[in-house]
Amino acid sequence: MANQKLIFTNSPAEAIDRYINEINPPQIFVLTDSNTSRLVYPRIAEKSRHLKKACEITIGAGDVNKSLESLASIWSALGNNGGTRRSLMINAGGGVITDIGGFAAATFKRGIRFINVPTTLLSAVDAAVGGKTGINFNGLKNEIGVFREADAVIISTCYYDTLPQTELRSGYAEMLKHGLISDRATFEELLQFDIAEANAEPLLALLEKNVMVKKRIVEEDPLEHGLRRALNLGHTPAHAFESWAMAKGKPVPHGYAVAWGLVVDLILSHMSLGFPSGDLHKVATFVERNYGPIGITCNDYPQLLEYMRHDKKNASVNEITFSLLEAPGKVKLGHTATPDEISVALDIFRDLMHI
Amino acid sequence: MANQKLIFTNSPAEAIDRYINEINPPQIFVLTDSNTSRLVYPRIAEKSRHLKKACEITIGAGDVNKSLESLASIWSALGNNGGTRRSLMINAGGGVITDIGGFAAATFKRGIRFINVPTTLLSAVDAAVGGKTGINFNGLKNEIGVFREADAVIISTCYYDTLPQTELRSGYAEMLKHGLISDRATFEELLQFDIAEANAEPLLALLEKNVMVKKRIVEEDPLEHGLRRALNLGHTPAHAFESWAMAKGKPVPHGYAVAWGLVVDLILSHMSLGFPSGDLHKVATFVERNYGPIGITCNDYPQLLEYMRHDKKNASVNEITFSLLEAPGKVKLGHTATPDEISVALDIFRDLMHI
Repeated sequence: MANQKLIFTNSPAEAIDRYINEINPPQIFVLTDSNTSRLVYPRIAEKSRHLKKACEITIGAGDVNKSLESLASIWSALGNNGGTRRSLMINAGGGVITDIGGFAAATFKRGIRFINVPTTLLSAVDAAVGGKTGINFNGLKNEIGVFREADAVIISTCYYDTLPQTELRSGYAEMLKHGLISDRATFEELLQFDIAEANAEPLLALLEKNVMVKKRIVEEDPLEHGLRRALNLGHTPAHAFESWAMAKGKPVPHGYAVAWGLVVDLILSHMSLGFPSGDLHKVATFVERNYGPIGITCNDYPQLLEYMRHDKKNASVNEITFSLLEAPGKVKLGHTATPDEISVALDIFRDLMHI
Repeated sequence: MANQKLIFTNSPAEAIDRYINEINPPQIFVLTDSNTSRLVYPRIAEKSRHLKKACEITIGAGDVNKSLESLASIWSALGNNGGTRRSLMINAGGGVITDIGGFAAATFKRGIRFINVPTTLLSAVDAAVGGKTGINFNGLKNEIGVFREADAVIISTCYYDTLPQTELRSGYAEMLKHGLISDRATFEELLQFDIAEANAEPLLALLEKNVMVKKRIVEEDPLEHGLRRALNLGHTPAHAFESWAMAKGKPVPHGYAVAWGLVVDLILSHMSLGFPSGDLHKVATFVERNYGPIGITCNDYPQLLEYMRHDKKNASVNEITFSLLEAPGKVKLGHTATPDEISVALDIFRDLMHI
């Protein structure tokens, strides 16, 4: 895992060619979805010497295609186009592509080499590093998969002109989470940065520092037995907000839910662990400005608590588990909160966000 | 990998209960096929305290069921019966069950604990130890899978009264292979043993020594980059014999093909590396007596060579790769032989086997 190469560059084709020169695979496969195949991959391939002879495999875009059917079609394409144990697979796309492509590569002939080329901010900061691969199955997200790191991840911000603003903001919420887990300076730098005006180069520099936070945590705890749970900061309320919005027929982007969830978790951190109220207010202001409010009322609390109670990270349905902070960079794992405490936190959340 | 528990006992229910007491899983699943479910598993379950509350998942018997469809049905059964990341899976059956069950467990929720309870000699000596899991896919054997060791393997010979003699002999050929790779004493002890008259207890003692040979090799080279290829002794000609017999419409058991393949590889070892002719004759006599002859003539050589040329262990189709021996216990990996040398070896094989 420590051997994984993380390459930050806005010349991705050159980085890919250099990596291929090093390992000299007899066959190269590139996995894309219908969006990246049209909008992004041609821009990389035209500048690469090696990708001209690669075999492209394309699946439909969107989470609905992170399925067993797509997985079987990737395995078949690998086998039918001469894939061997020495083949290289390149996953070029968002989180769906790096998740399903990583799983396909980890299992084809009991595992071939693969690299990730995340083309969205969210996949660069979240999905492409960390070794979680898999598919949705039986109505459940990421039900089937393995832990297996990509041999290299090539991260570039030069594709982000193809992304809508909501996508960029969504990824930025995960960056903010890494900043909070890491240290005060990283976290404050992120609050200063204007994602709406971001240019490729300064964003790449910021992203590099940020992804390294996750990489260090994953190296220490690859199988999520301890420290890695710090990466769940904000995610217990975030999943509840997502499910609640979905049930109302008005789904919200994952990163937006994470941004709101971070505020809730920092309120709980303040209540239980004395997280500084000045920092809490800075984050709440940033989140309100960049992500707007979520329209919950106190009538929604029972439903939100019900969603939190069934989060798979809980040890039992009577205790709701959170990863909290004493201060920026000071993580406390496995903190539990009662329904009453969470209701108070949601009241404060609505105050802070002017809902 | 070195942490895998290998338990040799003819009280398997007690060993399973002890293991379950140790790890205390919240849910237990048992995978069987239609044969072991009827003939073997009830004998284990009735003596076990914990298995009374286990959820049994049964798939069809035979290699044809080592399929994606069976795998999906196992994943669904795990999910629909309350499987969590902390569940335990017990694979009770032959090689098909340990292969597909190991793969299902290695991928359900990105990996749960599993133990193997091999119920045939072949699966005890070959499939249950070594971490190769997987399914057949797209017409190819073991096309999809991962390397993942079972947390424990519980090996017993007390089920073998349910097996036909051909099954026992088939497994014994793999034991003979381990003996040849290991050392002279182990190999000669195996030649003295009468598998037709074997009782459960002496066979268990012999099996324990034998499985440890494989375990040591796999520990040194889990991903088959080097030493583990020694386990391919006999297998290049064996796969050719199997394919040839299959094409004639008269399939032969895998272990019988391995027995004949061992003789061919020892002839090549004698020709190229001076393997002692006395040892070669002892093995040939043993194989002829226990496995009989295979009805090839010199007209079949081109077809047999063609099969060997397409073995997936070859680096190119012009060179056929073998793992050979200088003497019992002295392995030489990656030896190549020309079609002429192999034809000479097949002539000698037919002489020795009185074909």
